[in-house]
Amino acid sequence: MNWIESHPGTQEKSRTGALHTEAGIVQTPNFMPVGTRGSVRGLSSDVLSRSGTEILLVNLFHLWLRPGESVLKGAGGIRSFMGWKGPILSDSGGFQILSLKDRRKVSEEGVHFQSPYDGSPVFLSPEEVVRFSGTIGVTIAMVLDHLVSPEEGVAKNREALERTLRWAKRSLDAKETIESEMALFGIVQGGLDPQLRKFCAGELAGMSGPGGTTFDGYGIGGLGIGEAPDERISIVSAAIEPLPKDKPRYLMGVGYPEDLIEAVGEGVDLFDCVLPTRNARNGMLFTRAGRLIIRNARYTEDHGPVDETCSCLTCQSYSRAYLHHLFRTEEMLGPVLNTIHNVTFYLNLMKEMREQLVMGTFSGWKNHMLGHLNTRGKNE
Amino acid sequence: MNWIESHPGTQEKSRTGALHTEAGIVQTPNFMPVGTRGSVRGLSSDVLSRSGTEILLVNLFHLWLRPGESVLKGAGGIRSFMGWKGPILSDSGGFQILSLKDRRKVSEEGVHFQSPYDGSPVFLSPEEVVRFSGTIGVTIAMVLDHLVSPEEGVAKNREALERTLRWAKRSLDAKETIESEMALFGIVQGGLDPQLRKFCAGELAGMSGPGGTTFDGYGIGGLGIGEAPDERISIVSAAIEPLPKDKPRYLMGVGYPEDLIEAVGEGVDLFDCVLPTRNARNGMLFTRAGRLIIRNARYTEDHGPVDETCSCLTCQSYSRAYLHHLFRTEEMLGPVLNTIHNVTFYLNLMKEMREQLVMGTFSGWKNHMLGHLNTRGKNE
Repeated sequence: MNWIESHPGTQEKSRTGALHTEAGIVQTPNFMPVGTRGSVRGLSSDVLSRSGTEILLVNLFHLWLRPGESVLKGAGGIRSFMGWKGPILSDSGGFQILSLKDRRKVSEEGVHFQSPYDGSPVFLSPEEVVRFSGTIGVTIAMVLDHLVSPEEGVAKNREALERTLRWAKRSLDAKETIESEMALFGIVQGGLDPQLRKFCAGELAGMSGPGGTTFDGYGIGGLGIGEAPDERISIVSAAIEPLPKDKPRYLMGVGYPEDLIEAVGEGVDLFDCVLPTRNARNGMLFTRAGRLIIRNARYTEDHGPVDETCSCLTCQSYSRAYLHHLFRTEEMLGPVLNTIHNVTFYLNLMKEMREQLVMGTFSGWKNHMLGHLNTRGKNE
Repeated sequence: MNWIESHPGTQEKSRTGALHTEAGIVQTPNFMPVGTRGSVRGLSSDVLSRSGTEILLVNLFHLWLRPGESVLKGAGGIRSFMGWKGPILSDSGGFQILSLKDRRKVSEEGVHFQSPYDGSPVFLSPEEVVRFSGTIGVTIAMVLDHLVSPEEGVAKNREALERTLRWAKRSLDAKETIESEMALFGIVQGGLDPQLRKFCAGELAGMSGPGGTTFDGYGIGGLGIGEAPDERISIVSAAIEPLPKDKPRYLMGVGYPEDLIEAVGEGVDLFDCVLPTRNARNGMLFTRAGRLIIRNARYTEDHGPVDETCSCLTCQSYSRAYLHHLFRTEEMLGPVLNTIHNVTFYLNLMKEMREQLVMGTFSGWKNHMLGHLNTRGKNE
């Protein structure tokens, strides 16, 4: 896999380009809709394609449990199983170390989980994550990292960071033992400490396997879990500084449209987040004029589209009044149409950023958008 | 609206043709996916079109309550509201007289309901049903009828039948007072008594308004509620006998694929039923080889499509193993993909029947299919 910049030589930190993968090309910056368990809630791959999706995210930990390795191998891999022809990136399960805190035990070797489905034991190690990712044919695999909350204090964060680096090295070593075209991304951790972030990124940038293998790109993890946007963007900036300029950077699990715009300004190339899909199911729609809460009575007789500027299947055929009606009558089509809109909104925003970057007008556009978009919650 | 037979003069009771409506042409025999509250569960109008849908069914009683007349008028009618360009048939609310037995009171004037949403009072009369159908722009309206269970005895059934006929006459009269291209169908009732059915159908066939308006077609109601298939088909046959040959017949709320095939053999032109959509949500898929229960463990590693002969979006892109996985993980995409398959299965079956009718080979095909399809439940 290669990332090739379209307009090298610019003075800006922001950039545009394309990931050339074995499963197809991904223009960057880009956004990956989240299909944790092997499906983006309610959307067929056909609808995802038509919404502009170029790359999907799945979660290795969840796929490991269900449907499991045997089914995925039998299907000819995760892409064939999901009926998705394009590239797929797999998150490793590092986030589950944080989110399933009461169901796991971390040791130097790896993580012992209890399955949230049936309590059965699951063991993830850096090597197993690389092997399993390769076996199920993901296009880009994230290494296993050790994610802890910043609230757990400096000592625990430092310890987790050092383990994350040792695991990263083991992941690179493991990658040299498998036969696969799969790309492997390291993950920069370090909580909310810019110096730790720089240290971690520098270590990953200089890391290689015995055969000289280096990371194909870098995730920035452990963000989007409650920190303020200003704090986050300074951490992103610190994390990116030591990273090689010719490799893609992926800000994991972030965030609102404004967060994406700011992060692209710092040189981020890839994003994923559950916000567009999860909020859609709750009836929150993203528009150029801010958030739209479809259950509100004001939309009962509003026969205009969700967003007049939007090209999505939902805005082309349905009104706010119809979506409001679907919400009130709890019709399944409501979440489906809302999700189509929000996913398209995010993908169109990424497309617009790429166009602004190509034209060299991104910086002014960014300031304008940050002043006008109002999609973050009051305390977000 | 006109129904024009394609191959007049055949000796068979079965027939093929086309409904020419102001909203488009519907080839017959045909099946209407059910969108009770203004949406076919989980399917956008785009997906419905691509699945072969030519005409949809909605329920007037439900739309009356939500979103209500003002919203539907403001939207420019139900078709525009639902983003559906083709014809729409509305069921009147007669079925709710049966299904909401504890929330309604029938008088000669009409039916007083309590809203199942919030208990507020709703009054439906034959005239109001015609007026409301016209106002919201349905293509074909069913009259309000008085449906009672056969178990309520001969006297009550006879009484309901006579009221149904008086209401039918009032509906025709009312139709002459509204300005609309809408078609109006009478409904043949009479429970499981062939003589009552013949009597009712004959009365409806001879009925006209003061200006000479007659029904544009005829529903056969009160079936698909527990009677045996053999009993049903003899009732359908009796109901059709007195009906004019140049008007469409619609068997309401029936049934399994075998039921549809048998009824087409008797000369039925239109169907609706919740079976393909409701069963899809419960994981029951219709195939040429019978029922497929997707939750069964045997599909865990079955990488073939639901039905190898099926052209639907689901069978073209996804395996049984994937649908099984979606069912187990309770992913919303499961019901969506299952519904696409079942709706397409029904519509393809109707298409096949039309082709067999055109070729003059329907009768032999029908016998073959009834011997081989096995989609009815054991006691159905």
